[in-house]
Amino acid sequence: MNVPGCFRIEASCENTGARAGVLETAHGPVKTPVFMPVGTRAAVKAMAPFELKAIGAQVILANTYHLYLRPGAEVIAQAGGLHRFMGWDRPILTDSGGFQVFSLSDLREVTAEGVHFKSHLDGSRHFLTPELAVWIQEQLQSDIAMCFDECVSYPCSEKESARAVDRTIDWAKKCRAAHKREGQLLFGIVQGSVFADQRRRCAESLAEMDFPGYGIGGLSVGEPHESMYEMLDETTPVLPPGKPRYLMGVGYPPNLVEGVARGVDMFDCVLPTRLGRNGTVFTWTGRMNIKNSIYERDFSPIDPECSCYACRTASRAYIRHLYRSGEILASRLCTWHNLHFLQKLMELMREAILKGKFESLRRKFHENFRDGGNPR
Amino acid sequence: MNVPGCFRIEASCENTGARAGVLETAHGPVKTPVFMPVGTRAAVKAMAPFELKAIGAQVILANTYHLYLRPGAEVIAQAGGLHRFMGWDRPILTDSGGFQVFSLSDLREVTAEGVHFKSHLDGSRHFLTPELAVWIQEQLQSDIAMCFDECVSYPCSEKESARAVDRTIDWAKKCRAAHKREGQLLFGIVQGSVFADQRRRCAESLAEMDFPGYGIGGLSVGEPHESMYEMLDETTPVLPPGKPRYLMGVGYPPNLVEGVARGVDMFDCVLPTRLGRNGTVFTWTGRMNIKNSIYERDFSPIDPECSCYACRTASRAYIRHLYRSGEILASRLCTWHNLHFLQKLMELMREAILKGKFESLRRKFHENFRDGGNPR
Repeated sequence: MNVPGCFRIEASCENTGARAGVLETAHGPVKTPVFMPVGTRAAVKAMAPFELKAIGAQVILANTYHLYLRPGAEVIAQAGGLHRFMGWDRPILTDSGGFQVFSLSDLREVTAEGVHFKSHLDGSRHFLTPELAVWIQEQLQSDIAMCFDECVSYPCSEKESARAVDRTIDWAKKCRAAHKREGQLLFGIVQGSVFADQRRRCAESLAEMDFPGYGIGGLSVGEPHESMYEMLDETTPVLPPGKPRYLMGVGYPPNLVEGVARGVDMFDCVLPTRLGRNGTVFTWTGRMNIKNSIYERDFSPIDPECSCYACRTASRAYIRHLYRSGEILASRLCTWHNLHFLQKLMELMREAILKGKFESLRRKFHENFRDGGNPR
Repeated sequence: MNVPGCFRIEASCENTGARAGVLETAHGPVKTPVFMPVGTRAAVKAMAPFELKAIGAQVILANTYHLYLRPGAEVIAQAGGLHRFMGWDRPILTDSGGFQVFSLSDLREVTAEGVHFKSHLDGSRHFLTPELAVWIQEQLQSDIAMCFDECVSYPCSEKESARAVDRTIDWAKKCRAAHKREGQLLFGIVQGSVFADQRRRCAESLAEMDFPGYGIGGLSVGEPHESMYEMLDETTPVLPPGKPRYLMGVGYPPNLVEGVARGVDMFDCVLPTRLGRNGTVFTWTGRMNIKNSIYERDFSPIDPECSCYACRTASRAYIRHLYRSGEILASRLCTWHNLHFLQKLMELMREAILKGKFESLRRKFHENFRDGGNPR
């Protein structure tokens, strides 16, 4: 049962799509549903690997585009792979760079073969293809690699999105053909913007290629939450039930709960780390801006119930002071808390699914969490 | 023997002024010679308290001027003192704010009673007196408080320095009279720029006031190392032999060794943390700039012999990559290493003094350490 790619579903919710499972990887098992902290440039911002372990992080994400440009895939290969390079011995998922190159709107040109782009670092010219994206990820030696896909922005015309879906399917085939690394799982990525038929078409085509897992991309890019939920409702039933599903770029707590309810197993997002660096922390009643002057003399922790290092050792007043003073420790404490919060939320959902109590948890969560909209 | 202020000298070097001792404080003993990491704004930059403990830091420094302006002495008093505010239960030394207000050259005016200055944060007007400096430090509840002194810049005329010494002596009396906090040690500060007679005069006057310890200020402010060493040679013999001596603002490794050789027991400096954030790390052969391209594919640690977290888990190539990528973890790892290095250096000196081998350690240290001049 320890073969990488094996996905064992341990329990499913009777009335929602939620499920609890275990995904085997070359660096050990990942219990799902799981949130993956993002380490874009081979480091989860403000965190050290031992702290991620203390929080219970099971798998982290790194970025093909960024690591290809700096320090370069060969440097990391020479280090013995990304795990050894960054001192993280648990699973790593790398995204393909698709999202990043398509975000370089002024610096890129798309062809049927791939994307010509200029580096945001030094303006140097590069041509990222499905084959190259796979090759880089093989050099990085991640546990889970993602197919190179075409991401469209939101809003986007039906025609534009359809063309991107065509390309995404074509490139997925090319990635699959190019991929050789034993033990590394290659996931396909479903695109289709907010068009239900395109989402279904893309998911069906990818499902035929029989990937060991499926990303759902191009969501959480500005569309209303309801559209995202609708697209999930259209997509997950088409994907093979026995394979893990990964909703890319989603980390806002209410979205995580609703994603799980719709059968998603994996998530990643820069939100908890970015918000943390900006002094916004998650609590079970919603977001809290620690810089607010009401915390000047508030010597209680961010969340008295929380067992993270920040909540065990620092007060709101102290963290507020650190922020105002520009201390790195402020970013560290808030990031730590936010990642711990999401980790806890995922653990609670998993436990609830295993106990057949997911629906009650989902209801309670939404009752308590004041949804201020997805912060960006 | 656990009365705060008790200083027990355990061993002295036969041929130099070096000595190993134990200073009792309200938060426990401090083994000397000791380097105190600087936590200007109630945080040692890039470090968390648990990491400082892991390194073996015994006592840290915080800054009266900065904490008075933000978050304010009353906020910290209300938190239960600086230890509770910042989650550090070992000794804390606070400096008086003298050095900081005198650094505000354009924003301050000195009178016999104190210093009028404008806050560097918001331009608000304040008047810092010896009495206020003591009061603030009593609010902060530090273990060791420093007298409010007048620091002159370097170079400075004999006349100017003499006037500052007069004022420093007068203010030391006022601080002593104003100081009431039981268990908090108040140290005097010797000034006198690079004028031997002034240094001796200041030290003699302060010695008469019988402080539990003595700071040596106004050095390491731009004068040649030889002048600093000469001033120490003039000053320490005049100070009471049974009291701790604290050379303020010194943290460059060769200066620490020479300071100890001249009978100094305590040191502080922002150097290890500031250099760390800038990618410069200490090794036993000198400084190393981790950003250098020669480390691009160097997968060895900063120092293979070092047992700090950075050296146990990260390579030069990885840390260089983190720097170039602007990752907070780079500052964390290099700061951690530098503080660990100074801690180790002080421990080695203490051990050598106890074993009667200080001179040999001193010689070996200088043979190995390429002195590139005091980096500022």
